[in-house]
Amino acid sequence: MGHGGGGKLMSDLITHLFAQDLKNDLLDQMGDSTILPSDLAAGRLAFSTDSYVINPLFFPGGDIGELAVNGTVNDLAMSGAKPLFLSCGFILEEGLEMKTLGLIVKSMAQACRIAKVLMVAGDTKVVNKGHGDGVYINTAGIGIINNEIDIRPQNAKPGDAILISGSMGDHGIAVMSVREGLSFESTIESDTCPLFDLVESMLVITKEIHCLRDITRGGLSAVLNELAKASQVGFEFEETKVPVRSGVQAACEMLGLDPLYIANEGKLVAIVPEQWSDPILTEMRKNPAGTDAVRIGRVVADHPGIVLAKTRIGGSRVVDIPAGELLPRIC
Amino acid sequence: MGHGGGGKLMSDLITHLFAQDLKNDLLDQMGDSTILPSDLAAGRLAFSTDSYVINPLFFPGGDIGELAVNGTVNDLAMSGAKPLFLSCGFILEEGLEMKTLGLIVKSMAQACRIAKVLMVAGDTKVVNKGHGDGVYINTAGIGIINNEIDIRPQNAKPGDAILISGSMGDHGIAVMSVREGLSFESTIESDTCPLFDLVESMLVITKEIHCLRDITRGGLSAVLNELAKASQVGFEFEETKVPVRSGVQAACEMLGLDPLYIANEGKLVAIVPEQWSDPILTEMRKNPAGTDAVRIGRVVADHPGIVLAKTRIGGSRVVDIPAGELLPRIC
Repeated sequence: MGHGGGGKLMSDLITHLFAQDLKNDLLDQMGDSTILPSDLAAGRLAFSTDSYVINPLFFPGGDIGELAVNGTVNDLAMSGAKPLFLSCGFILEEGLEMKTLGLIVKSMAQACRIAKVLMVAGDTKVVNKGHGDGVYINTAGIGIINNEIDIRPQNAKPGDAILISGSMGDHGIAVMSVREGLSFESTIESDTCPLFDLVESMLVITKEIHCLRDITRGGLSAVLNELAKASQVGFEFEETKVPVRSGVQAACEMLGLDPLYIANEGKLVAIVPEQWSDPILTEMRKNPAGTDAVRIGRVVADHPGIVLAKTRIGGSRVVDIPAGELLPRIC
Repeated sequence: MGHGGGGKLMSDLITHLFAQDLKNDLLDQMGDSTILPSDLAAGRLAFSTDSYVINPLFFPGGDIGELAVNGTVNDLAMSGAKPLFLSCGFILEEGLEMKTLGLIVKSMAQACRIAKVLMVAGDTKVVNKGHGDGVYINTAGIGIINNEIDIRPQNAKPGDAILISGSMGDHGIAVMSVREGLSFESTIESDTCPLFDLVESMLVITKEIHCLRDITRGGLSAVLNELAKASQVGFEFEETKVPVRSGVQAACEMLGLDPLYIANEGKLVAIVPEQWSDPILTEMRKNPAGTDAVRIGRVVADHPGIVLAKTRIGGSRVVDIPAGELLPRIC
């Protein structure tokens, strides 16, 4: 508990652990708030936040620290914003091993380097043993949006193509498998990764991307429903076109889960004018985060707010937003 | 748990609870990140974050929601930044009463109105029952700093006056008294309040304010030590000049606590050139947050990094930074 009290122990924690791994001139200001450089004015700012309560803290393909950086970076990228600065709030459980915290902080630092963002402000609180599950992390992020870009959930238009950047369900099944002690033939790894490079390459083809959304909690079904409702258009896609890795598919069949409802942490859906669909896909597939990118369907004027899937056997079904919780605590 | 899963229940929670009380055009964007207005360019940006894990959630004079707004608003104000936008991340404990959450959100909305900030981005996670103590809140904030202002912990100079804006210890003792079931003759209330109006009025007198710091965890002793170390100067102050309410004083004597080490949530220390000390104090006392403002001492070139207090009996003692935890979970 001493490390959360504002005293010398906390000051040591900040200096020796956080400030070393995450070192940069802005974080070094050590003020109550961090003053950002003034040469940001070439666009509008985007601002986003997410808390991470994933259990367990480490899972195949990632950990809570990497997730906390990539998640917020990706939320910014989904506005077309170049992510620049992150803040970070740790809620530590009394008794958390310093070694564990050290690994998480190193992982965050590494993720920041890969995503080309700076961690510029932070806070640490400690809660009593038995609460907090080791560590919860909140990150907030600031990015900058080129003035020609207007990507919003309300922008999908009939005729647009629906693209996704890769396979569905990897993150959720990776976390679930360790949590439930399931083992499959091959380890399923989380897909956690930053998506701005991918978005930036898509924007080189055209600024006219209508909607972007990273496919996290609630999976593809939640995201498509949100976009269809926000834009008041209908969505139709072919279920067979949605890539699902064989291990994920097998796990889903065993557990009675639908990959369309499982979270990812490094995948996006893009709604783009049909004429840009092929060139954007070609570009996406050149990026490591988009090698399996595919066009899964189209936006229609019929049945606004409703998402229809063409099934494997040729029928068509309404893909609803999931009511509650499929896999709790997966981010 | 269903309310954290990214599905319909979560969507309902956001729409009916958060979006109503905290309603504004920016929050209404409902994108993965919020796009801020582009006419911010008249200065540098300040960015800050804090998590709030206070126990209990409601205490005399405030609650976790009000604290979460004022705390981050005040961190921004301490850079001389006008607070503009907040993000908010809730970590809810499964089983938390909707009514309780509703009260907290309403309190946040009210605190935002008073502090003249907009809540523009949010996130909700749910953790299992028995974890999370009802609710933890993280806020991050963006403010803008007039280009003439340069307030930093490193700026204290020998000869400067040390001012504080009012009485010490109210918040810590208010929280402690309810938590420990102590009762005193009169209820001690938390001093939680936003401080930017006070800072703005001080900046009207002169832009040449050297350091500002809100006096939270670790109390006045921690803040003075941090500033003395950051600026590599010595601090000297008179203990008898530090205002402490009689109820707080009595509680501290009973509990064996020193008010210099107890947290506040609506008080600041200001390090200002001696010639501006009186006019700034006069201005501070006109503001409801600064009625008891007082000059408690001065910055010296001797003993850099060391804070000395002249005691009641005429001696002098080193006021050290507290080592660990005096009152856990008070913010």
